[in-house]
Amino acid sequence: MSETPAFQISDTQIPEVPTVKARRPDPCALVIFGATGDLAARKLIPALYHLALNGSLPQDFVVVGVSRSVGDADAFRARLLESTRRFSRTKGVEPAIWQDFAARIFTVAGGGGDAHTYAALRDQLEALDASHGTQGNRLYYLAVAPSLFPAILQQLKLAGLIYDASDRRAWSRVVIEKPLGSDLDSSRLLNGLIAEVLDESQTYRIDHYLGKETVQNILVFRFANAIFEPLWSRHHIEHVQITVAEDLLVTHRGEFYDETGVVRDIVQNHLFQILALIAMEPPATLAADDVRGQKVQALRSIRPIPPQDVVLAQYQGYTEVSGVAEGSRTPTFMAARLELESWRWSGVPFYIRAGKGMSAKDTEVAIHFKRVPGILFGREAHLCPNVLVLQIQPNEGVSLSFSSKVPGDDLTVASVNMSFEYAHGFDRKPGDAYERLLLDAMRGDATLFARRDEVEEAWRLVDTFNLAWERGRGDVPVYPIGADGPDAAQTLIARDGFAWRKLG
Amino acid sequence: MSETPAFQISDTQIPEVPTVKARRPDPCALVIFGATGDLAARKLIPALYHLALNGSLPQDFVVVGVSRSVGDADAFRARLLESTRRFSRTKGVEPAIWQDFAARIFTVAGGGGDAHTYAALRDQLEALDASHGTQGNRLYYLAVAPSLFPAILQQLKLAGLIYDASDRRAWSRVVIEKPLGSDLDSSRLLNGLIAEVLDESQTYRIDHYLGKETVQNILVFRFANAIFEPLWSRHHIEHVQITVAEDLLVTHRGEFYDETGVVRDIVQNHLFQILALIAMEPPATLAADDVRGQKVQALRSIRPIPPQDVVLAQYQGYTEVSGVAEGSRTPTFMAARLELESWRWSGVPFYIRAGKGMSAKDTEVAIHFKRVPGILFGREAHLCPNVLVLQIQPNEGVSLSFSSKVPGDDLTVASVNMSFEYAHGFDRKPGDAYERLLLDAMRGDATLFARRDEVEEAWRLVDTFNLAWERGRGDVPVYPIGADGPDAAQTLIARDGFAWRKLG
Repeated sequence: MSETPAFQISDTQIPEVPTVKARRPDPCALVIFGATGDLAARKLIPALYHLALNGSLPQDFVVVGVSRSVGDADAFRARLLESTRRFSRTKGVEPAIWQDFAARIFTVAGGGGDAHTYAALRDQLEALDASHGTQGNRLYYLAVAPSLFPAILQQLKLAGLIYDASDRRAWSRVVIEKPLGSDLDSSRLLNGLIAEVLDESQTYRIDHYLGKETVQNILVFRFANAIFEPLWSRHHIEHVQITVAEDLLVTHRGEFYDETGVVRDIVQNHLFQILALIAMEPPATLAADDVRGQKVQALRSIRPIPPQDVVLAQYQGYTEVSGVAEGSRTPTFMAARLELESWRWSGVPFYIRAGKGMSAKDTEVAIHFKRVPGILFGREAHLCPNVLVLQIQPNEGVSLSFSSKVPGDDLTVASVNMSFEYAHGFDRKPGDAYERLLLDAMRGDATLFARRDEVEEAWRLVDTFNLAWERGRGDVPVYPIGADGPDAAQTLIARDGFAWRKLG
Repeated sequence: MSETPAFQISDTQIPEVPTVKARRPDPCALVIFGATGDLAARKLIPALYHLALNGSLPQDFVVVGVSRSVGDADAFRARLLESTRRFSRTKGVEPAIWQDFAARIFTVAGGGGDAHTYAALRDQLEALDASHGTQGNRLYYLAVAPSLFPAILQQLKLAGLIYDASDRRAWSRVVIEKPLGSDLDSSRLLNGLIAEVLDESQTYRIDHYLGKETVQNILVFRFANAIFEPLWSRHHIEHVQITVAEDLLVTHRGEFYDETGVVRDIVQNHLFQILALIAMEPPATLAADDVRGQKVQALRSIRPIPPQDVVLAQYQGYTEVSGVAEGSRTPTFMAARLELESWRWSGVPFYIRAGKGMSAKDTEVAIHFKRVPGILFGREAHLCPNVLVLQIQPNEGVSLSFSSKVPGDDLTVASVNMSFEYAHGFDRKPGDAYERLLLDAMRGDATLFARRDEVEEAWRLVDTFNLAWERGRGDVPVYPIGADGPDAAQTLIARDGFAWRKLG
């Protein structure tokens, strides 16, 4: 099925609260591979339950759980009720809603590599089309290890469960979880295997950061306001800081983290996605490929990152974590200075940092504007430059620091803040990122999913320093827990006369 | 004495709170003509008391009250203690501070037109120079009817109490209260008489609006921030609304108001002063004449206001107020559309309104930015333009409305607010405007006082419609109390497709 417009306009426009209403999703079956896994229990089923609670699911909708150990529908439903009670963001479940939702959950027991599984799945889906009106539309969710992606996709194709993308009678789409490779080569290989089975328009590469309200709000903030875009360039911006900081340490899953590290876990995907939304040119429309095309342009404008502009480090004690290899070089912290060679950004450094064991949990974008020209308030009066902060999490919101006169009989100027907090500004609570992303996948809106070229551009950037680092020897810099990275991270930005913002 | 730099830099700079510290005032004597009048009791003496309380007065300082009925110093002090207790903004007086302050209050009893008064005043001031170290510096405050100005100034001159402006041994300055004429001709006449005695640098025309913190903050907001000035022009601003609304009615002093009206009471002075600060080009420095020169330029760029762009009206019941002339045409409300012919503002209408009997007390400047270009969020989605509001009084502060994504599974965009409130942002309470203005006059900083050409430019603008109105006949439009002016005021702005902001 070809790409559909991303948004539609609702009929009932309230001028004060203009609305670009999303399409209601089509009738469909959602097939979860890895149905008994962690992701399904913690995220996918709770997200679907909340969509049911909000009345956002299509009327004609079923879930089919596939896994070797999934058991029959009743057993699976009982197990999901327990996990959803535990992981529901609204604490517990409403019995009537759950009952109606659970009645639409089915299972197919079988291994992902086994042809029988797919024959059974096809029979099940066809039966459900007849009994539940799902009209042949299928959304496959690969909640399994990436090594299993190619086999599952091939089997789906062989079983006739993937339609031609141009088929207008029904659609099939596949949601793929990260990691999407571990470098450019492996990513290309994986994407190549995916492309053998799926058209790009059928491929939904999930990055849950893009499902966050505040990440989506970057687009609205930039392009639904007339006052920020004129300032959004090298003419007015001095530098940009993007931070994805976690105060947590690696505790369980040490082995997984040690294979991944901060660059693959955070920077290549989440951080570069945020950066692309900040740096991109305005798209012609909000259709998925217009937005993603401009994001790719932004990523493509980033110059290869020289080693002296990257700081990688481990928090003190990381190598003693269970599962972490002896003498591991896996970084838990990264900071870098990026240069974007474009008309908009040339000469404006972008500083990025991400890490574990930092002083606070804090994901934010800080736009530091240029200094005030002239000496109107005295050459010695170091006026604080304006800083616009898009706070992604926690305390989601926007704040702007500006200079104001301090009350009193002289001309004392101080930096003060105006701010807007989502939690205070809106009575609606944002849903979990997975709710939005599942819904978008069902309605065929790929705007908030990563396109192949985005993923590969991000790998290209990361590879410039990451592969050399992994091949390298010598001591890994270490930072104390809560210290926001090693001294070298401070030096990196201080070289240009700036300083990292305080976290939290 | 020639003009001194407006501000000095303090030695102890705190980078986070840069300070442009004002000079401490010189030793001096403050002479109040009309010492037993309302202004002295309600404003001047309470303001001086608070300056004493804050330690802002010069160490060597005296007050000399002049009036026919002022009596001896003790009687005057007792009377001022009573009135200050009543009108103090900090409720009551601190005995120790008052005692020390009151000991520096003296009197000269005599009429303003009487040469003996000035001989006695000269003797008194010379004695105080000797006893209190006031060094010959004199600040005269004319808290009397404007008709008495010429006589008092002439007598001061004759008695040798006004020095040459170039005299470097000591200074003499005169603070003059409004009204400064009632039209351009009378204002020129008065200014001419003043100029016979005083150099412009010795003349301090008070406009208490300029003493308000939030009015002063317009300069800081515009020129101490890098992000607003680039937006501050026809390229980004659609229109500007300036409102000085009072919910009060004319109750006492009906006769005075009926001779004045809203145009002379509010528009010619306060409103045009605010407008000039909003519209002016950046001055080279903050020295008084640089700032005032740019304000004059802004006023001079305003095109003569055609009658069809002015709405004048009376609130319902005004003509029944005691003291108001039968069939009075005096307006209690004015709205107008102004055009500024300048590179910065050409094509950006400025809408002004002022009135009594409005729905709320509200003085504010609202900068309405242009609409967002393009149809990114749907042609039907009428995104609210950004509005920046400088709230002068009450609830002093700054707010900015902008579009944000509403939490939820679609792209609903709503207009939300970031705001900064003085009362929450600073623990220091702003003083009364008279405190700041008296202090500035003592330290020779005329930035917040109106220069002759500013006053005359404002009269030129007002005269274009006001004189014709006064000569006119026919019905005076009437508006219900609380209705924010007559329908014609709505029509005036609706003609251009805009609407007045809701008050309060």
